[in-house]
Amino acid sequence: MKPNITSLEADAAGSRDLAVTHANLEIPADDPIGLDSGIEFGPVNIAYNTYGALNTDKSNAILICHALTGDQHVANKQPLTGKQGWWTHLVGPGKPIDTDRYFVICPNILGGCLGTTGPASINPETGLPYGLKFPVITIGDMVEAQARLIDHLGIDQLFAVVGGSMGGMQVLEWASRYKDRVYAAVPIATAAWHSSQNIAFHEVGRQAVMADPNWLRGDYYSGGVVPRNGLAVARMAAHITYLSEDALHEKFGRNLQDRADRTFSFDADFQVESYLRHQGSTFVDRFDANSYLYITRAMDYFDLAAENNDVLANAFRGTRTRFCVVSFTSDWLYPTRESREIVQALNAVAANVSFVEIESNAGHDAFLLDEPEFFATIRGFIGSCAQKRGLTSAGKEA
Amino acid sequence: MKPNITSLEADAAGSRDLAVTHANLEIPADDPIGLDSGIEFGPVNIAYNTYGALNTDKSNAILICHALTGDQHVANKQPLTGKQGWWTHLVGPGKPIDTDRYFVICPNILGGCLGTTGPASINPETGLPYGLKFPVITIGDMVEAQARLIDHLGIDQLFAVVGGSMGGMQVLEWASRYKDRVYAAVPIATAAWHSSQNIAFHEVGRQAVMADPNWLRGDYYSGGVVPRNGLAVARMAAHITYLSEDALHEKFGRNLQDRADRTFSFDADFQVESYLRHQGSTFVDRFDANSYLYITRAMDYFDLAAENNDVLANAFRGTRTRFCVVSFTSDWLYPTRESREIVQALNAVAANVSFVEIESNAGHDAFLLDEPEFFATIRGFIGSCAQKRGLTSAGKEA
Repeated sequence: MKPNITSLEADAAGSRDLAVTHANLEIPADDPIGLDSGIEFGPVNIAYNTYGALNTDKSNAILICHALTGDQHVANKQPLTGKQGWWTHLVGPGKPIDTDRYFVICPNILGGCLGTTGPASINPETGLPYGLKFPVITIGDMVEAQARLIDHLGIDQLFAVVGGSMGGMQVLEWASRYKDRVYAAVPIATAAWHSSQNIAFHEVGRQAVMADPNWLRGDYYSGGVVPRNGLAVARMAAHITYLSEDALHEKFGRNLQDRADRTFSFDADFQVESYLRHQGSTFVDRFDANSYLYITRAMDYFDLAAENNDVLANAFRGTRTRFCVVSFTSDWLYPTRESREIVQALNAVAANVSFVEIESNAGHDAFLLDEPEFFATIRGFIGSCAQKRGLTSAGKEA
Repeated sequence: MKPNITSLEADAAGSRDLAVTHANLEIPADDPIGLDSGIEFGPVNIAYNTYGALNTDKSNAILICHALTGDQHVANKQPLTGKQGWWTHLVGPGKPIDTDRYFVICPNILGGCLGTTGPASINPETGLPYGLKFPVITIGDMVEAQARLIDHLGIDQLFAVVGGSMGGMQVLEWASRYKDRVYAAVPIATAAWHSSQNIAFHEVGRQAVMADPNWLRGDYYSGGVVPRNGLAVARMAAHITYLSEDALHEKFGRNLQDRADRTFSFDADFQVESYLRHQGSTFVDRFDANSYLYITRAMDYFDLAAENNDVLANAFRGTRTRFCVVSFTSDWLYPTRESREIVQALNAVAANVSFVEIESNAGHDAFLLDEPEFFATIRGFIGSCAQKRGLTSAGKEA
């Protein structure tokens, strides 16, 4: 077992120190995870970060589920990029998800590339990276791996499970599979199934990766050359879907990039071209192309209704979890309509649910940005659940 | 000069013969086209089709402008694919644009790959295909080439200029540059400038082509291997933008392709994946990758306001052309809002304009599909203009 490493890092505002523990759970081969495909898979390493302290009765744990290209570094600097964690707006000392009150756990997902076992990990049968020998996984499989971690931490019931986009899919899957283990659930900017348009965009990204001759059917790890170009194109296409047309218009319009006129060439004349190229090229430095294939596939396969005899409400029948469903007005990747379908299913089984559509023109990316109304929503919901759960402000059960 | 070839082809319904003339205009090097980039470009061949007969006073000519991946085969079988022309719903004997009444001209655009000079054509200076030595062109340059053709045909004023998508951009440019030569103008599913989101999607497509190692910086013609994979990815990404989310949902939903369950692989499990892959792979058989780069660039550069001191209305000041602007409710590539901007500019100069938003859930592609309300609109507008212009039903001036 790798040792836990706890470090003090300045929080995003630079005003407070935040204790972060970087840890790993090694699940041995003789205790494999049963995947939805029927495969018994192991060994599995789960890399995870924790922030704050678990109270004595272990009732103040919040699991954060990350999105497609996210990772466990939710509130501390990402080691590869040196950038602030992806949700420092929301998670930290005094933040809506307050690390002074709650024990926050964020694992890298199964299939990921930041420490948890994924296609770039060594296949013990061959001594080489899995590549395409890695099994095709599902959102449910990601949740099973997380459940092992929660078992390991000795936590019977999570106080809350929170996530946006693909993280929200995991939240829904948690609330469906482990009804008694989730006190509160916050699925944000997400859907109970992946739409055909979203499958289509993912398929474009996968084909872009697979068209790159350096992809080598997934066996590119030993050669030292990765399918950069294909992955960059995939990221560029995806990135457009994360923004709203209004946001693109306001941010870039038809502005030219550091030039007075069109160059009559294929240079990045427009700011939006330059921005997209930058998004593509920086992404490949921090992400594994095969992980991108596997994770997008898992999202495409996600259909919580299909898992429950084609009736979404069945997924939540008997739930006592408190739900807070959040969508953003300009999100066209996971439009409000799809959040409403979740809410309707929850209403159909008389679940405790609140639903907030946040006014924002930032598109899907809004869930990662500085959106005060969103933060107030989360702070209010988590605070009210903590009160009902009898958690004192110090995170202890009253 | 290549000879004109006139053939009788069955019309789309198979019930009527349609006479199609396949012709070429060769513009010599010593009479070059002055491009917007400042380059004097020639020689240029323009491949074009005509349908119907020009009346004696040459007042019944309708110019059809094709879109990004369209061609001159508007109403007859496309020779490479064997499929019906792309606008047989709209153009033909008895159709809204009636080849029994009007002389219909459809040229392949400058930069195209179906006979008109483009990047795959031989550069007389080198004896080799232009590749990236082809000049970067604009929508205005396409119109200049068409104007040469209209001069050659001895037509002072076109009765109408009609086109959708990029074809609509050419219509607007015609109406702006040649106010006295356009009696009626029908810009369909288009915009007066290309939005940043649309530039972004085009840039993804170009990067996909350029990432293909077979692209060879555009010099792939001699090797016999073309950048198939890159162009296919570009087409797949673009194709998503041509459909509405509703259309994708209704057409495919999450339906699986010829299988009972997910395969837990990267096969095209979903119908929408299979459909997109098919769209990508058939496109590369009929289209040149460099043409795709040049034409998307021309669209990105299009900004009729910028060409007129940043005031779109200036583009139409003094016009006597009758306009019919058409948009479709579910078109998110060229949303109705952008058609309204055209209408507002026309209103600002007291132009004669009617505007119709057609209810359709087919997305941008609606302009190419069987949309009865759209056809009725075109039939009504063209018929009423013909009456005002004094054209009898036989296409002769009264």
